[in-house]
Order: sequence, then C-alpha cells, then structure tokens
Amino acid sequence: MDGAHSDATLLGPGDDAAIVASPDGRTVISIDTQVQDQDFRLQWPNGYRTTGFDVGWKAAAQNLSDINAMGARATSMVVSLTLPPETAVGWVEDLADGLTAGIRELGAASCSVAGGDLGRGREISVTVAVLGTLDAGAPVLRSGARPGDVLALAGTAGHAAAGLALLESDVPVDALSDGQRALVELQCRPRPPLASGPAARAAGATAMLDISDGLLRDGMRLATASRVAVDLNPGPLKRLADALRPAAELLGMDPGEWVLGGGEDHGLLATFPPGSPLPHGFTAIGSVQALGINEGPGVKIAGRSADTGGWDHFAH
Amino acid sequence: MDGAHSDATLLGPGDDAAIVASPDGRTVISIDTQVQDQDFRLQWPNGYRTTGFDVGWKAAAQNLSDINAMGARATSMVVSLTLPPETAVGWVEDLADGLTAGIRELGAASCSVAGGDLGRGREISVTVAVLGTLDAGAPVLRSGARPGDVLALAGTAGHAAAGLALLESDVPVDALSDGQRALVELQCRPRPPLASGPAARAAGATAMLDISDGLLRDGMRLATASRVAVDLNPGPLKRLADALRPAAELLGMDPGEWVLGGGEDHGLLATFPPGSPLPHGFTAIGSVQALGINEGPGVKIAGRSADTGGWDHFAH
Repeated sequence: MDGAHSDATLLGPGDDAAIVASPDGRTVISIDTQVQDQDFRLQWPNGYRTTGFDVGWKAAAQNLSDINAMGARATSMVVSLTLPPETAVGWVEDLADGLTAGIRELGAASCSVAGGDLGRGREISVTVAVLGTLDAGAPVLRSGARPGDVLALAGTAGHAAAGLALLESDVPVDALSDGQRALVELQCRPRPPLASGPAARAAGATAMLDISDGLLRDGMRLATASRVAVDLNPGPLKRLADALRPAAELLGMDPGEWVLGGGEDHGLLATFPPGSPLPHGFTAIGSVQALGINEGPGVKIAGRSADTGGWDHFAH
Repeated sequence: MDGAHSDATLLGPGDDAAIVASPDGRTVISIDTQVQDQDFRLQWPNGYRTTGFDVGWKAAAQNLSDINAMGARATSMVVSLTLPPETAVGWVEDLADGLTAGIRELGAASCSVAGGDLGRGREISVTVAVLGTLDAGAPVLRSGARPGDVLALAGTAGHAAAGLALLESDVPVDALSDGQRALVELQCRPRPPLASGPAARAAGATAMLDISDGLLRDGMRLATASRVAVDLNPGPLKRLADALRPAAELLGMDPGEWVLGGGEDHGLLATFPPGSPLPHGFTAIGSVQALGINEGPGVKIAGRSADTGGWDHFAH
C-alpha cells in the first residue's frame, strides 16, 4: 500500500520491511484490528452503507488515538488488509483513500503509510500498527494520577455511541437533522483530538488514556492503574448529555448512558496537577481522590459510586 | 498479551501503546497476517490438527524473517488476535506459548512481545507487527545486486512446500518416516535462519530478501528491483531437490517444483560481491548477470529463462 512519504519514512513500501526514523531513540507502538460485522457493518439497519473510506478513516483514527493518548506524535503506519475475494477493487481503493485522508485531516501531518500486507479471508479485516515519537519527552501513562488532580476531557464523549444507535435504528439517514447526521458521521469517521495528547504532556498531565470504551470503563482503568478514585462532576456530564438530547429523544433513549458508556469518540481523559491551567481543548469534568481505608479504585459521580446508583443519580 | 521483557521494551503491555528502544534512531518495521483456512487449516487432509502453538510459532517466524531479510535484528512485536467466540482458551494460551517459543528458539533473543490487542471475528486471524534495529548499519535492500555478484541461499528451500503436500495428502502422519515428518513440522513451524541476515549484512551482501513465495518468484523480485538477471546453477538446485526425494516419491511429485516454487521455509536469498567469502550458513546457488539489450529482469537456470524451459531443464 502506497502512501505519501513523510520525513519519518526512511524506506517506504516495496522491500521486506520499512524503515522509520525514531529521532529520540524510542518508538511508541500500538496495534489494532477492525473486523467486518464486529467493528463495523457493511450495511446498517437504518440503510447506511459503510464505505471503504469510512473503514480506512476509522482504522487511522483509532490507531492515531492510541499514540495521542501517550502524549506522542504518530510518525508512521503499517497496514495489513484481509479481504474476501469478492471485495470490489473500488472499495479497497476507497479504504486506502480514507486511511490517508484520516491521517491528514485529523492533523497527523508527520505520519505516513510506510508499508503493508494484503491477504485473503472470509471477512474484511484491517489491522494497523502505528508508530510514534515522544520528541524526547516522557510518556503520559495511565498510572500517574494523584489525589487532588483535576480530571479533564478533550474531545467529545457519547457522540459516536449516539451515532451507533442511529445507525442501528430504523430511522433513515435522510430523515435525520444535520446534528443527528453529524453523530452518524462521527461513528463512521471518528475525530480524535490529536493535538491534545502532546499538549497535555507539555502541560504536565499526570495520567492519560483515550476513551475507547466509555468514561466509566476507561475512567476505571485510569483509577485502577493509579490506585485512586476518580469523581465525575454532574454539571459537565449533563452538558455533554444535553448536546445529544435531540438524537436521544428521536430514539427514546437516555443520552446520559451514551456519555458514560459510549466509546469510539476517542476523546482523551487526563489528569492534571491541581491549579495548573488546562491546555487548550480540555474541560474539567471531575477530580482525583485518595482511596479510603478498604476502598478499591473506582469511578464516582458526585461522590457516589457509579456502579451503585451514581449513574442513575446523574442520568435522571 | 504478556511476554518476557527484553532490554528493548521500555514500556510493555497495559497502557494505550508500548514503547520500544530504537537505539540507532531508526526502526525497521513489518506487518503480516495469518488467516485460518488461508495460511493454515485447523484440520489437514492427512489428519494433522494445527495447534495454537503452531500458529503462534509460524506468526513469529514469518515476521522475524522479514526483519532478518533487511539484515536487521528484531527487538519487539505487537500482536493483534481475532478469534471466533467458540475458540478454546487453551488453544489461545498455546498460541501465546508458540509465539514466545518461536522467538526464543529461533534465536531472536533480543525480541519480546511488547503489546497486543484482542478482538472477535468469524475466523482466527493473527497479525504481528515486528520491530527491529539495524545496529547502526545500512539495510540490505532488494535493489543492490550487481552483475558478477554471487547468488547465495541461507536456510532451506522447498521443505515447507513438501510438508504442505504431505499435510494435503491422505498419508497419515503416523505412516511418515522421521524425515518426512520433519518436513511437516517445518511447514507448521518454519525455522528461518535468523543469524544469517545480520551476518550477510556484515559480510557486505549487496541485495537480500526472504523466500516466502519460492526461489523463482522471489528471485524475480530481486532481479526486478536490481534491474539484473539472476542465473541459478542446476547443481545446487539438484542437491536441494535430492533432500526432498523421499517425500516426493511417496506422493509421486516432483521435488524440483518444491525447490523452485515453494516458499514458507523463509530462507534468505542474497547476493555478494564476486570473490568475497560467503558468511556461515550461505551456499552459492547462482550468479547475477547484466541484462542484455532489450532484455528484462528475469530468473534463469543455467542460462535459460526459467519460464521458458529452464524449470523443465532442471527438473527432469
């Protein structure tokens, strides 16, 4: 698979392996697979047909987000495609276009596709391994949050989940408002805030991860890795949910569940030392608390455990 | 997925991405996918059942071979597994064991599994991205062969193809001789000569690639990239074929076709300047020739084009 070469690609496609610059002597690396009927459907209940462009974009976005979540900057991708023999060539070209468009439009200007591999299977599967650099900085891990830190969000939460609910509904795309259609687009072509990861690192973020499985589950991961509790404030959660209310009302669903349980927007959840100004793009949504005696790591909403009523407390 | 940490793994599994050392400021990177029923069968016609260990080993071997073929040394792998929900946990544990055993027993002591990803699909699919270092040396590309160079092979050729033919036959494994069974084992658990890639680079190899699709096809790739013809000597080809004769006779097949057309042994095909001593493990099997007027890159056997009789000339 060809791609525009960036400075980081020292040897591109065509040999047994590619060679990529790792300027500070370290390489940040992540890998992720999207499989047909698991991570996307070719045809959705509401009639929308997933394009190759969507799948390519999403593969780029998901992987770039993992690099972003370390506070790093992507330098390169390698792609392994598995395709059923009946896949239309145009669909595959579209996928390659979506991949490069995602890289470019999401702002990963220093990243290019350095190589790839193509094989056959019964279902479409796209695996991307993405490489990045920390530009001589320290990575932001999940484990560094300290009691008293501010918990902050960059990007959106729940939009992709709302888009998924719309795709799985029987409301045709044509009947959606512009705002509702934008949610569908965000599910198909996520927009992780790629400038925010390195900005958080520069601003002294103590912990960070990308929200791929929802605020509650990813918040729990941060809490567990850092041995703390994270406490979400109802105010910002309500504002996040309010933005999704038109879609929720159309479907008779609860926008709060999308905000707390929806991943795939690939926003960033990060913690910052108390009193330090948040970098551009981040909004405070809670705080980090020390664990009480006999208390395990957990996620709370306004001080109440999210799995014993906190959710309901906020949602209704 | 956990793995023993090597010096190169600065941050292992558990965060959004792993961090791997790239000591000379460059990273060699390759990616490859194995899919059930395409790259392996869970149950073969001869009765052999592919183990998770086999699949893990083969995934390691194939990817390590790509790094080897650049003259580089593997430092790290990330693995993305797609599994049908009914896959037995024991099979998956076996796969992880095969992966780490392959890395260790093939001699990639500096390599470890730095991270991974697990998802669901209708068929088993294993993608590995492998990272390597050139230890401050220059990579050996496919494009550097020069007229007069010696063409040499490290490792075996045709053994994995013979093993495949045995697996696809109706001769049960129990009825095979030790030698025949070893061919089956090499198909299931290839043994690329990992010391030979860096040794070839150190010895001044001008071009190199790993044989994944057979001497003829991979020879053609080297010839095309280097704008030369490569001429195989019948003597060494015959010796390679003779080693496969017991299996060929059992199946009534031509061992020469395995030698010329069989990949998956992941031997190395390399070219060396005339007169320079070949590194340990390499055997001369031919030479590099300048292209004649109006002649395109190609593969010959004893001076005759391999696709216009050269093959037959050798095989019979």
